[in-house]
Amino acid sequence: MSQRQMLIGMQLGNGYGSQVTAWRAPGVAPRNYSDFDAQVRYAQAAERGKLQFLFLPDTPALSSDLTHEAPQMTLDPLLTLAAVARGTERIGLVSTASTTFMEPYNIARQFKALDVMSHGRAGWNPATTSDPNAAANFGGTIAERPVRYQRAHETIQIVQALWGSWQRDAWITDTATGRYADTSKINPINMQGEYVASRGPLPIPPSEQGQPVIFSAGGGDYGLTIAGRYANGVIGSTFSIDDARAQRDAAREAARAAGRDPDEIKFFAGIMPAIAPTVREAVERRKQLGVHTFPARVPYLGQMLGIRLTPDQIDDPLTPEQLAAARPSPFDPRAPRALEIAREGWTIREILGHGAIDYHPTPVGPASATADHMTEWFESGAVDGFWFSPDIYEDGIDTFVDEVIPVLQERGLFHTDYEGTTLRDHLGAPAQYGLDARTTAATAS
Amino acid sequence: MSQRQMLIGMQLGNGYGSQVTAWRAPGVAPRNYSDFDAQVRYAQAAERGKLQFLFLPDTPALSSDLTHEAPQMTLDPLLTLAAVARGTERIGLVSTASTTFMEPYNIARQFKALDVMSHGRAGWNPATTSDPNAAANFGGTIAERPVRYQRAHETIQIVQALWGSWQRDAWITDTATGRYADTSKINPINMQGEYVASRGPLPIPPSEQGQPVIFSAGGGDYGLTIAGRYANGVIGSTFSIDDARAQRDAAREAARAAGRDPDEIKFFAGIMPAIAPTVREAVERRKQLGVHTFPARVPYLGQMLGIRLTPDQIDDPLTPEQLAAARPSPFDPRAPRALEIAREGWTIREILGHGAIDYHPTPVGPASATADHMTEWFESGAVDGFWFSPDIYEDGIDTFVDEVIPVLQERGLFHTDYEGTTLRDHLGAPAQYGLDARTTAATAS
Ligand SMILES: Cc1cc2nc3c(=O)[nH]c(=O)nc-3n(C[C@H](O)[C@H](O)[C@H](O)COP(=O)(O)O)c2cc1C
Ligand SMILES: Cc1cc2nc3c(=O)[nH]c(=O)nc-3n(C[C@H](O)[C@H](O)[C@H](O)COP(=O)(O)O)c2cc1C
Repeated sequence: MSQRQMLIGMQLGNGYGSQVTAWRAPGVAPRNYSDFDAQVRYAQAAERGKLQFLFLPDTPALSSDLTHEAPQMTLDPLLTLAAVARGTERIGLVSTASTTFMEPYNIARQFKALDVMSHGRAGWNPATTSDPNAAANFGGTIAERPVRYQRAHETIQIVQALWGSWQRDAWITDTATGRYADTSKINPINMQGEYVASRGPLPIPPSEQGQPVIFSAGGGDYGLTIAGRYANGVIGSTFSIDDARAQRDAAREAARAAGRDPDEIKFFAGIMPAIAPTVREAVERRKQLGVHTFPARVPYLGQMLGIRLTPDQIDDPLTPEQLAAARPSPFDPRAPRALEIAREGWTIREILGHGAIDYHPTPVGPASATADHMTEWFESGAVDGFWFSPDIYEDGIDTFVDEVIPVLQERGLFHTDYEGTTLRDHLGAPAQYGLDARTTAATAS
Repeated sequence: MSQRQMLIGMQLGNGYGSQVTAWRAPGVAPRNYSDFDAQVRYAQAAERGKLQFLFLPDTPALSSDLTHEAPQMTLDPLLTLAAVARGTERIGLVSTASTTFMEPYNIARQFKALDVMSHGRAGWNPATTSDPNAAANFGGTIAERPVRYQRAHETIQIVQALWGSWQRDAWITDTATGRYADTSKINPINMQGEYVASRGPLPIPPSEQGQPVIFSAGGGDYGLTIAGRYANGVIGSTFSIDDARAQRDAAREAARAAGRDPDEIKFFAGIMPAIAPTVREAVERRKQLGVHTFPARVPYLGQMLGIRLTPDQIDDPLTPEQLAAARPSPFDPRAPRALEIAREGWTIREILGHGAIDYHPTPVGPASATADHMTEWFESGAVDGFWFSPDIYEDGIDTFVDEVIPVLQERGLFHTDYEGTTLRDHLGAPAQYGLDARTTAATAS
């Protein structure tokens, strides 16, 4: 049976969950931020669900107020994935690393080492990093987009060239003759960009998938040049099927423009489900998490709805006057859904408990609501799969794996086991080793 | 009983051993270079011997000819130690990282993450990196010493300040009140050097030992300024008891000059034993390894001895004329020992098989020869301990642990179990969190 099936990745981060107050949820160890055992356990749970990959966002900076919220990132994404690599067998391991604040040689080395360590499961999300807090940690400021993206292109190409600089068949290790390697097949790359350069070679042999897979999670035209040329996976933040389809089409078109087969890119839409037996219980789960953080978000919710809202009204629904005056802001794609929820009569706290201003769509209620959301988006052809952000890792992953995944599997929409062993296998990504000539011709400098 | 006891660290590297042809030794898997399981196994063997720490040299470059020799480094030292951290309980985990080719924020983050992951077992050897191959990998050339060492001082101080930027008691995680952290105790460091800068904070809580321990393995006056100010462990390459004592005294004097108690620095002399039941068998072990590499070293051995030697004489001893003409070179501290061996009548190949031009002294023969060497150096007060480089990891570690360690333990010269759980415990290094005011006053810029 060759029905097209969706792919699913999972966000991994601070040890608690994608809700910034998940650290204080019942059953969560409040110091999981520094507990690598917990990270491994969460990865194993995702692997039990046969998810294709883990994806770790990253910014080299503290960018949140820690009074009530946990940091959003892992202590260090590469060390986290090294621990996870040792504790899992199949699931893909994708991490973000900044092209602006890391050197290509160091990126190339650590990601290829992770790829070898995990037997071909590594992926890299090159981020241009627009956070000024990150720049300050490196003694600088954030440069304009053209500069950051030029450096990103150079960095990615140098990294890929370094990955290929130890040719596939260079490693001889013939104990009889004493020949360790064919040094004619381990060569400098001698790449000199405007912002970064490297001579190489990088002395790391190929992994089971050759070299790590490139992801992209940017946005806008600049981001698309990255996605189109290099990525096999693109993660989008999108709040409607039509927008998802538009983002997917744009990524595929960018691939085509770069001379690639658009099917080489898989497009993933984020989702942040709130799962509980009933909608009211799911909202309650989120309300508990939001005790300290929701009040400060009320004014922004008002802005989204085009009306003035203040925290003292947080436990009331919108008044009939407010509902009549409300107009979804054209600047926030989440606004129409927020208004829909408001019209159902929920209090402001409950509207926020619906995930109305979270980063990704939040199906609310029983597992079937999430499965239905995923089914509808996937069957409409708007996405190749999803990037699942558990609200609380401790129980959220198990719930997803035990309640959502089986529904998708019954519907024939998700595989029941890994077909291969590498991340490339999981994504159906083509073999690649070193630079891809198709995508670099345009930028040779 | 409070007899002073020696400390022992072990070199970990490419998966084969410190002899560059160890990859083809009998019993060694020739592709261990890419096998993290093997690294973990070797670390566990060292831990079984209660060794205080592992120490990984590193240069971000390929600097050897791979025709017959393996690369000398791990694929990546931090990922290797992450794997080892997950597979061991007690042994310290020290890695080299370049102050010239890495940014302080990235170093601070990865080493503190490793320290947390390993429950307080991490250490950092800041290397100024003098290899032009490394510079080329970052698009540059090697700067003069004053520049590299100025950057090293700035980098180490910024790294330590970042380590302390999340204060010891900043982490509240009170689920009742919802207070995650006391943000008045997580602050920017705002350090601006001539070459590097960082604002911080680094959002990583303290490990069980607070922060990683600093090592030093440089040489010369510049290296001593690093050792004196920051290091709790100094690794030296030294070929006589008198020289070891001089190096140890110099490090202690540098500590004193920096306002520290000299006992805060432990001095380790390298050793590369060749262990077998008899001297002849130990030499044979090394001769086998040198089949492809010894011929090219003959001329240099000649230089050391002040006479002309050519590879065609490799299987002959020195002639009486050569022996009469030989004068140990004053530029190579290994020369006197090489001449001693030559005078015993060994062939040139066998002289090399004695480790005559290896990086560290090579006790040759039964385990007792190594134990006696260590006992003599230690009891003469020239060293606080040793850095053991196994010639072949696969059997060399077990031999050392099973045959040398028990002799030292019987003599009361080595502990029989770990006294504590952290690297600071193992070294008797004082508590430190953040910058040490004593050592930075001199360099505030
Ligand atoms: C799902 C998703 C995840 C992202 N993760 C990161 C991340 O981890 N780190 C980061 O710097 N940017 C990340 N981004 C990208 C930024 O949000 C933003 O799109 C990007 O920095 C574009 O800004 P720029 O073009 O000014 O660089 C992510 C974007 C999306 C859609
Ligand atoms: C035992 C020992 C181990 C060393 N390990 C390294 C190393 O891993 N990486 C490195 O760059 N330098 C290492 N060094 C230091 C260099 O050998 C050399 O002493 C140092 O680069 C000094 O040169 P510089 O002052 O020109 O920088 C080590 C030195 C010793 C004695």
